Amino acid sequence: MSSVLLHDFIIEEHVKNALKEDIGFGDITTDYLVGEDEVITAKLNTREDGILCGIDIVEMVFKTLSKEIRIEKYFKDGERIKKGDTLAIITGPARAVLIGERTALNYIQRLSGIATETNKYQVAIGDNKARITDTRKTTPGFRMFEKYAVFTGGARLHRFNLADCVMIKDNHIQFAGSITNAVKKIREKLSHTHKIEIECDTFEQVKEAIEAKADIIMLDNMNCDLMKKCVELIDGRAMIEASGNVTIDTISEIAKTGVDVISSSAIVAKAKTLDIALDM
Amino acid sequence: MSSVLLHDFIIEEHVKNALKEDIGFGDITTDYLVGEDEVITAKLNTREDGILCGIDIVEMVFKTLSKEIRIEKYFKDGERIKKGDTLAIITGPARAVLIGERTALNYIQRLSGIATETNKYQVAIGDNKARITDTRKTTPGFRMFEKYAVFTGGARLHRFNLADCVMIKDNHIQFAGSITNAVKKIREKLSHTHKIEIECDTFEQVKEAIEAKADIIMLDNMNCDLMKKCVELIDGRAMIEASGNVTIDTISEIAKTGVDVISSSAIVAKAKTLDIALDM
Amino acid sequence: MSSVLLHDFIIEEHVKNALKEDIGFGDITTDYLVGEDEVITAKLNTREDGILCGIDIVEMVFKTLSKEIRIEKYFKDGERIKKGDTLAIITGPARAVLIGERTALNYIQRLSGIATETNKYQVAIGDNKARITDTRKTTPGFRMFEKYAVFTGGARLHRFNLADCVMIKDNHIQFAGSITNAVKKIREKLSHTHKIEIECDTFEQVKEAIEAKADIIMLDNMNCDLMKKCVELIDGRAMIEASGNVTIDTISEIAKTGVDVISSSAIVAKAKTLDIALDM
Amino acid sequence: MSSVLLHDFIIEEHVKNALKEDIGFGDITTDYLVGEDEVITAKLNTREDGILCGIDIVEMVFKTLSKEIRIEKYFKDGERIKKGDTLAIITGPARAVLIGERTALNYIQRLSGIATETNKYQVAIGDNKARITDTRKTTPGFRMFEKYAVFTGGARLHRFNLADCVMIKDNHIQFAGSITNAVKKIREKLSHTHKIEIECDTFEQVKEAIEAKADIIMLDNMNCDLMKKCVELIDGRAMIEASGNVTIDTISEIAKTGVDVISSSAIVAKAKTLDIALDM
Amino acid sequence: MSSVLLHDFIIEEHVKNALKEDIGFGDITTDYLVGEDEVITAKLNTREDGILCGIDIVEMVFKTLSKEIRIEKYFKDGERIKKGDTLAIITGPARAVLIGERTALNYIQRLSGIATETNKYQVAIGDNKARITDTRKTTPGFRMFEKYAVFTGGARLHRFNLADCVMIKDNHIQFAGSITNAVKKIREKLSHTHKIEIECDTFEQVKEAIEAKADIIMLDNMNCDLMKKCVELIDGRAMIEASGNVTIDTISEIAKTGVDVISSSAIVAKAKTLDIALDM
Amino acid sequence: MSSVLLHDFIIEEHVKNALKEDIGFGDITTDYLVGEDEVITAKLNTREDGILCGIDIVEMVFKTLSKEIRIEKYFKDGERIKKGDTLAIITGPARAVLIGERTALNYIQRLSGIATETNKYQVAIGDNKARITDTRKTTPGFRMFEKYAVFTGGARLHRFNLADCVMIKDNHIQFAGSITNAVKKIREKLSHTHKIEIECDTFEQVKEAIEAKADIIMLDNMNCDLMKKCVELIDGRAMIEASGNVTIDTISEIAKTGVDVISSSAIVAKAKTLDIALDM
Repeated sequence: MSSVLLHDFIIEEHVKNALKEDIGFGDITTDYLVGEDEVITAKLNTREDGILCGIDIVEMVFKTLSKEIRIEKYFKDGERIKKGDTLAIITGPARAVLIGERTALNYIQRLSGIATETNKYQVAIGDNKARITDTRKTTPGFRMFEKYAVFTGGARLHRFNLADCVMIKDNHIQFAGSITNAVKKIREKLSHTHKIEIECDTFEQVKEAIEAKADIIMLDNMNCDLMKKCVELIDGRAMIEASGNVTIDTISEIAKTGVDVISSSAIVAKAKTLDIALDM
Repeated sequence: MSSVLLHDFIIEEHVKNALKEDIGFGDITTDYLVGEDEVITAKLNTREDGILCGIDIVEMVFKTLSKEIRIEKYFKDGERIKKGDTLAIITGPARAVLIGERTALNYIQRLSGIATETNKYQVAIGDNKARITDTRKTTPGFRMFEKYAVFTGGARLHRFNLADCVMIKDNHIQFAGSITNAVKKIREKLSHTHKIEIECDTFEQVKEAIEAKADIIMLDNMNCDLMKKCVELIDGRAMIEASGNVTIDTISEIAKTGVDVISSSAIVAKAKTLDIALDM
Repeated sequence: MSSVLLHDFIIEEHVKNALKEDIGFGDITTDYLVGEDEVITAKLNTREDGILCGIDIVEMVFKTLSKEIRIEKYFKDGERIKKGDTLAIITGPARAVLIGERTALNYIQRLSGIATETNKYQVAIGDNKARITDTRKTTPGFRMFEKYAVFTGGARLHRFNLADCVMIKDNHIQFAGSITNAVKKIREKLSHTHKIEIECDTFEQVKEAIEAKADIIMLDNMNCDLMKKCVELIDGRAMIEASGNVTIDTISEIAKTGVDVISSSAIVAKAKTLDIALDM
Repeated sequence: MSSVLLHDFIIEEHVKNALKEDIGFGDITTDYLVGEDEVITAKLNTREDGILCGIDIVEMVFKTLSKEIRIEKYFKDGERIKKGDTLAIITGPARAVLIGERTALNYIQRLSGIATETNKYQVAIGDNKARITDTRKTTPGFRMFEKYAVFTGGARLHRFNLADCVMIKDNHIQFAGSITNAVKKIREKLSHTHKIEIECDTFEQVKEAIEAKADIIMLDNMNCDLMKKCVELIDGRAMIEASGNVTIDTISEIAKTGVDVISSSAIVAKAKTLDIALDM
Repeated sequence: MSSVLLHDFIIEEHVKNALKEDIGFGDITTDYLVGEDEVITAKLNTREDGILCGIDIVEMVFKTLSKEIRIEKYFKDGERIKKGDTLAIITGPARAVLIGERTALNYIQRLSGIATETNKYQVAIGDNKARITDTRKTTPGFRMFEKYAVFTGGARLHRFNLADCVMIKDNHIQFAGSITNAVKKIREKLSHTHKIEIECDTFEQVKEAIEAKADIIMLDNMNCDLMKKCVELIDGRAMIEASGNVTIDTISEIAKTGVDVISSSAIVAKAKTLDIALDM
Repeated sequence: MSSVLLHDFIIEEHVKNALKEDIGFGDITTDYLVGEDEVITAKLNTREDGILCGIDIVEMVFKTLSKEIRIEKYFKDGERIKKGDTLAIITGPARAVLIGERTALNYIQRLSGIATETNKYQVAIGDNKARITDTRKTTPGFRMFEKYAVFTGGARLHRFNLADCVMIKDNHIQFAGSITNAVKKIREKLSHTHKIEIECDTFEQVKEAIEAKADIIMLDNMNCDLMKKCVELIDGRAMIEASGNVTIDTISEIAKTGVDVISSSAIVAKAKTLDIALDM
């Protein structure tokens, strides 16, 4: 095991909590019915096309339940999988396999769903230079995994949390008086390693943001014409993020405006679980 | 604060972790820009109709950040809210309000989304006696909240975890030899406080399950005609759960077969977030 | 390792906390006196007859201290052990064996004590159909283990916690107005997977409970004559739990009334530790 | 609140875990039946004589569930209570009182039981100078509380864990070659703030221990005659601990030998819970 | 309370662990000697000049031990304090004050020491535009606090951890083949919100880094002449960080080269504790 | 692995937290640049003479990141190392080595720095019988490690926390009225396994402390002449600890007064990190 960004010891801790949540005081069906020496082989199959995400987490779930579990993995996270593909074969104590099934699937179905949805958006962008990116609209306690899925699906990741990039919004501007003041005030304290992004609703704001030397300018809820004008104005002096009204249908047009990234909460919040199952 | 099933001290622990996840080493935008004495008033408004869920969690988020936060709540969890309604007014240190915004919304948008989706299914059932119920297909680490939302939306809750109801499935039956054997073997060990549910795919299995005195019979992936036959056969001798192919379009017809509960993972897994926002 | 209900990763977490509690900043006797390369062999012997419980936890204690520990186990949890029996032989670094001794014994002595006490009650029931069961009167933070010991001793387990079975008591009835109202009110919300148990002090209450279709009726603090009358009245329409004044001397008579389970807090609260020792 | 040795923030953490253990996903009886605005008054009464221990923990249990709980306490930990005494009156939300009842009682019944048992031993010692003391034979995860109860009952506390006093036993002596060598080796490393106790089985060992300048000599499993001889030999040059075969019947005679402390695992391991109840 | 970057609920968790570490099973001196009703007033005085850091943590330490503690604070974090200044007056239960003293001082002495040391470096830079900054060389488990102290002392903060800024070092370059390749490879995956910093040892590397459009160029272990040349070459096209051989004596000269930030592990690793004491 | 006092399972938990602190959401430099199959060999070299401390923790850091890491260790904790020595060779996945580097060094540099500083003080004491000892002035959350380093450097350890030795200070004496009263009051409650130390500022206090039969007398901030007088007065009736104004220059003279231990916070608080590096 060893995933980009996501370390095994982090996964293990999350998986243990998830298993506790699902097992409670014990699986009274399986433990009362299945002997501890019973062995089983199960195939992890996908019933839908998509982008795989979470195969190593599945492994961690079963291995947390029993060190005797053996798993052969046929795909890696990020690979395209097709309906009917066998993703992995799991062999070992039947109790561990049956008890871990739901938790394992809860991870891989949701993460593969997000990776798949993300990928659709990226594909829809086509040859445009833009990249899909995510937001901080994630499930409390599950962000690291959801961002990992977004990344696996081919997106650039937006900031992880409030600490790793400045994002100046409406309310901040009001407290500072103006974009110019806000940036000035922040620069006095800001780490040289962090960027400043400014959310702009209007062409005027974009102008001010450029003059303030923002690193990133977010074009918030603008129509494509206005975005195109802003892109021309900015002319490479800042990264440009388009935000608002991003759907699988609109994203291509937005991308054509020349923006660098297009952010969407939908790739996480509205992703459907991918139908992956464990067949014994 | 004080929600059915969900205790404040439990919410507080979860909220603290969610805040750590979102704040990291500190909100470098807000803390660098907004003075610690600045005060703000924010309205929690809904931009969509739905069922409210998570208002007390929102309160906990802000109060965890600052004890000086005051919140007036105009709706309770479970109440129907309409586009434009102000759900609460939050007053206090601007830093706390701005920093907590995203985490608070992440809870209430997702939980209200689930409650709203659940409620739609229940409403679609209409006058039939059936009740919508959920599954164990939840987000790892977030089940207690998702189940709370499902309950708030008007559903009966299915078992919380593997420990609080026996659920005999295909694989269990194979290990036991037959439904009859499985039930017999389990009854030797089972708590008198726990029920036995059996997943049945066929009319024959239903017959065997009744004879084994199952408490609950799950009709799994049956069509409505077959379900109706099974309901007649069971004739009140066990609770009946319908499962499989449950959508907002099919649920009414399924309900008409006379089953007691209809389980659906979609009410959690496919619920969209409800558009609730914080307007300063 | 692999115990019914109790998973290794759960045991491991509890054991680590217990070791921290007992070791503090380090075993200054052993670490200052015994070289890290010293090896020892220790026999886990019982000095009393009883039912073994906790052998896998003993293993976990020593393996947590050193991966080089080897343990040969000659008995399994639930087996009858006799004074003088060697339960296991532990070989490995002397430091780990000496440091882990007390913690290991604290688990196995107490759990075997509970299993043994429980078993005495079950044996005293003899050929009657009744089964001994436990209560929620457990040591805070240790319930999962105590319940595991009760189960190992041959009991049925009562509900694990407040979430997995309804138990309507005096105070609940007062708030609801009557048993009938209480059951009605609960049924509107209750999961189809959960049972309803009602605590009854009188024959009249038992009547009402049957009419309300309680799943389980607890005969609370009744004498055996009254219990017998209640059993006849109920006549298989509900599970019957006898509670109150249960001792090793009275249990056989109680069992003869025909009840299904007999609950006793004494099997946990009054169990003596079983005298198991580590002989080097 | 504020107990000797036991800090509120420590109690709070333990209590939260105990409540999680007992509540699980929610008290489905109370929450479904009792409205959140219902208020109740409950008396904490004792049905047995004894020494009170745990009254502040009871308060913490209820206050953790609801900040609106009010509690009037009529006794303090360590005070003698008599059958029929009302220890405290608790007023507040009925849900909190009903849900916290079992956990609160689990603490106070067990801790008062230990304090009471400990006190009996101390009383049995009478005018002799000896003091009862405990051992490390405690319930995993509950030691701090059990030691607090022992202290409350009037005992001196033995070492808390392996880090706060050297205790040289058989096996240590074997590794060191002799008591003399063991003490010498330890003194090279030992903190000046820590004492050395040596477990002695024979008169010869006691002699050697004195010469080695042990701070404490444990007379292990000796009869009273031999103990008396050892006490005379030691003659104030070391503290003396008697250990082994200590019962409520033998302790007075042991005390008469002139030892300083008498250790017993029974005051914890064999203490019965004290019958304290919550009457609504 | 409410510090920039450092939230109370974060401080509280850390403080509780620190108190557990220092208190263990209880303060046997204070609790055995001082009655629970005794009250004390203590002055927090500084015996050295410096920059204050940690005053709110001191408050949290005492309030965690007792809610009855009252504290009047006369200085805020970041303010200059002079030998003899009274920083705060703490009044409340004597037990809480005496027990919390060491832990409170451990925080404030170390954090004020770091803030003071940091400030000296910044002062030494004088009118040059450069700012002192820190490194990831911190005490395991204490980084958030040490970084807070560095910030309080007037520094810019370097990246918090491996996730919030790219830092390409020797080894990375070797794996990528060249700086150019490394940057190219990273840009394919990198968030638009994150910067790229490149560690350069030579003038040639700096050239390559500029061409690769690095956001930040670290001049690693260069002498001042070479640094000056590099600054001229870079000419505002990237932020410039000087690193290596930074002492209080050399920093002014380094600053004169025109670099933007000067990083030093010494401001944390070699800071002495500031002599602050609690006088009763 | 297996260090005196410090258990692997304790180290592992601390290391995981330190890694989380340093890695955050993932090492975006290494993970984006270095393939998961890349392998690296790194030498852990010291660039300074000193006493090694933390080599097993370094191993734990890398093994926590990858089970495939192999490490050959050439020195043990406590051994003297010389500039240029290779302490260990680490081979394995390049990602794990690069990601763990900073955290591993943060432990070993600081701990070896403390061990080295401690050792210098002990060496300065020369042939005198005195031993250097530490204080409770440690970094919050890091005490166990800092004390381990102090011990590794050749010191005796002072008490670990407030629970394992009585230390009567000024304020305690004031509450008790006198040293005599304080000791008397404490002896009524104190464990027989714990010592009493009294902080004395004057010759008179020392007299009173001896009469009260203190186990340890701390001569606090006395000059050497006065200390010598006190040592003569005490004449072996108590352990003697010198405290205050202890520097590497004064310690030899202090030792000559005949005290048993000399305590210094400087060996922890003012120790510099030892320059140990990882060369790839």
